[in-house]
Formats: sequence, structure tokens, C-alpha cells
Amino acid sequence: MAYRETEKMRQRKAEARQRIIECTWACVSEGGFRSARITRIAALAGVATGTIYRHFESREDLFAEIFRLATQREVDKVAEALTVGESTVQRLENALRQFATRALKGPMKAWALIAEPVDPKVEEERLVYRKAYASLFEQAIQDGIAEGCLPDQDARLTSTCLVGAISESLVGPLSPTQTKTPPGHENNDNDLVETIVCFCIRGLTGTRS
Amino acid sequence: MAYRETEKMRQRKAEARQRIIECTWACVSEGGFRSARITRIAALAGVATGTIYRHFESREDLFAEIFRLATQREVDKVAEALTVGESTVQRLENALRQFATRALKGPMKAWALIAEPVDPKVEEERLVYRKAYASLFEQAIQDGIAEGCLPDQDARLTSTCLVGAISESLVGPLSPTQTKTPPGHENNDNDLVETIVCFCIRGLTGTRS
Repeated sequence: MAYRETEKMRQRKAEARQRIIECTWACVSEGGFRSARITRIAALAGVATGTIYRHFESREDLFAEIFRLATQREVDKVAEALTVGESTVQRLENALRQFATRALKGPMKAWALIAEPVDPKVEEERLVYRKAYASLFEQAIQDGIAEGCLPDQDARLTSTCLVGAISESLVGPLSPTQTKTPPGHENNDNDLVETIVCFCIRGLTGTRS
Repeated sequence: MAYRETEKMRQRKAEARQRIIECTWACVSEGGFRSARITRIAALAGVATGTIYRHFESREDLFAEIFRLATQREVDKVAEALTVGESTVQRLENALRQFATRALKGPMKAWALIAEPVDPKVEEERLVYRKAYASLFEQAIQDGIAEGCLPDQDARLTSTCLVGAISESLVGPLSPTQTKTPPGHENNDNDLVETIVCFCIRGLTGTRS
């Protein structure tokens, strides 16, 4: 009788794949992509390193997959935040605030997704996802122009200005080599978010928010 | 008699190094880092590939050096542009315009320096140079606050917003996969630069420029 993959085997394989993904993300969340070693991931997931390469062609392919899954979650959060607020400007503020606040709450994760120097294969994904964020903002800016609450502008271009401003301004604060917030300055994060949001909204509206 | 490097040999070595650097930059200018192959660089420079590895430990080290040299030239241009203008806002506008205009005039070079997915070693340099641009802007913003022509703000943070906005908004237009400007739309570049500069200045000043 020819070898046939049983339902049970398929299920076991899918579970192993899921465990590999979860353990990789756990490693990345702790120390970024650089520190996520295949041997460590395999140990955490309880599989042989060879098993990982049966599921993913290379370390870079595994990382690209992790990057996509984790970033898609963040894109969804921004999309969700863009539905909340009375005016388009408030919705945009809400989405920018959401992005920055979430990043600062999970600085290592956010550093890995936004700024950590990574393999070109993962960096390619970053370019794709920056476009995804920009598309969301672009739609909102276009709505704002149509409603008359934003001045006429090249929404595609200014949406990328938003993406750039918000991610680049977080690079320093998120950097693992950055000195930690000294005690008594815990409000810094809040000021930081408000400064970034204010810059972005001013950039779009031309008025102080 | 022990082997001693003569003055002439040292000079010949320095010349070879310089030629390698120039030929690498020529390749990068033409097709980005990805397309700059060591065999091609060696052929252009008229040296054996082994010679390249006597001067640079690896392809990544060579690229990091090229990146530093080319980006430093751009940083210097921005620094220079920041000295020209009657007010701080005009000087900032001038510098932002200079950065964007130079990028759009040499799109492949700028793509390689700003956005091309590269080896983490080169990406590390990118982070360093983004800080260099930000420091220049930060100083100018602080001057503007002191002079009263910019509202009080966290200059360190808003300087990174500028760096992010101007580089991210150029990524699409510079991308080699981007469709070229159709004939009759050659003014697009100018509109593009003005939109980006306007967003940035609005972000800093809170007024329409």
C-alpha cells in the first residue's frame, strides 16, 4: 500500500508549524530577530531543528512569515482605530496614537518590526507593510478632503509622510540601546506620543491641534 | 633582508582601494546594492576578486564603507543647505528641498541609500546616518524656537519626524519598480517636493507655508 498522509498526521504537522511560529515570535519579542536562534526556537517548540526546515525553507523565510503575521495584527489595529472618532481628523489622531502607544508598550516587539536591521527578505516585507499603513491613512485623508476638514493635498504622498514621521520618531525611543526612562519621568511616553501625533496632524491640516 | 612595504607599494595599494570604491559606487548607482556583484566590481576596477577581499573583509564591509561615503556626501549637502535662507524656516525648507531634489535627480542612488533592502550591516549604517540628519535638523529647530519663529517643541523628536517624513515619502517615487513619469508630467517631481516640504514645515510650525 502506498504511503498516505493520514488526517492525524496532517493535524500533527499543522500543530508543529503553529508551535514553531509561536515560539519564534516569543524569541523575537524578547530580543529581536537577531537573537532568535533556530536551535533555541526548536528547543522551545520541542522539535528537532530539522523539523523547522521541513516547514520553512530557511531562517529568513520563517522570519518573513513571523514578520507578516505580527505586522498584520498591527495594521488591523490601525484600521480599527481609524473607525473611531467623530471627525476624520479625530479618527486619524486616534489611529496614530494607537500605533505609537502600542509600540511603546511593547518596545522590543515594535523595534523588531519597525527598525531592527534585518535580512533583506524581511526588509522587503517591511516595505510592503509600510504601503499597507499608508493605504489606510490615504483613504482617511481623502475622506477628510471630501468632507472639507482637511485642505486639498496629494493624499497618497502625505499618507507616506505620516508613516515615515511616526515610525522614524519611534526608532530612538524604541531602540534597545536607548537609556531607559528615569524614575519619575514615566509620563514621557505620553508626551512623546502627543508630540508625534501633533506633528502629523499639523502636517496634514496646517493648524495647531 | 626582511620584507618591507615600500612607499610605492603603499601608494599602489591605496590607488587600488580607491578604484574598488569608485567602481562599487558606479555599480550601486546603476542598479542598487543587490546588483553590485564582486566579480563585476573586480572586472571594472581591473583587479582580481581576491584583491577586493584584501582591502575589505567581506562584501558587506565594502558596501558599508560605500554607504558611509555616499551618505556623508548627502549629509554634508543638507548641512550646507541649512546655512542658506533668511529665516530658520527658510533654511529648513531649503535643506528639505535640497534633500528631496537631489534624491529625485539620482533615483537609483537615492533608492540604494534610503530604502533598498540591504544586509543588516549596511542597515546599521542607515540608522547611524538617520541620526546624523536628525541632529542637523534638531539644531535648526532649536534655533527657530530660540528666535521665536517656531513654536516650542521637543526638537529632538520633531527632527526625527522630518527625517521619517521626507525619506518615507520618497520611497515610492524612487522605487525602481515604480512606473516612470509619463511624458507631459515632468513637473511631477516639483509638485512632489513641494508637497513633502509643505507637510514638514506645517508639522513644525502649525501654519500653512
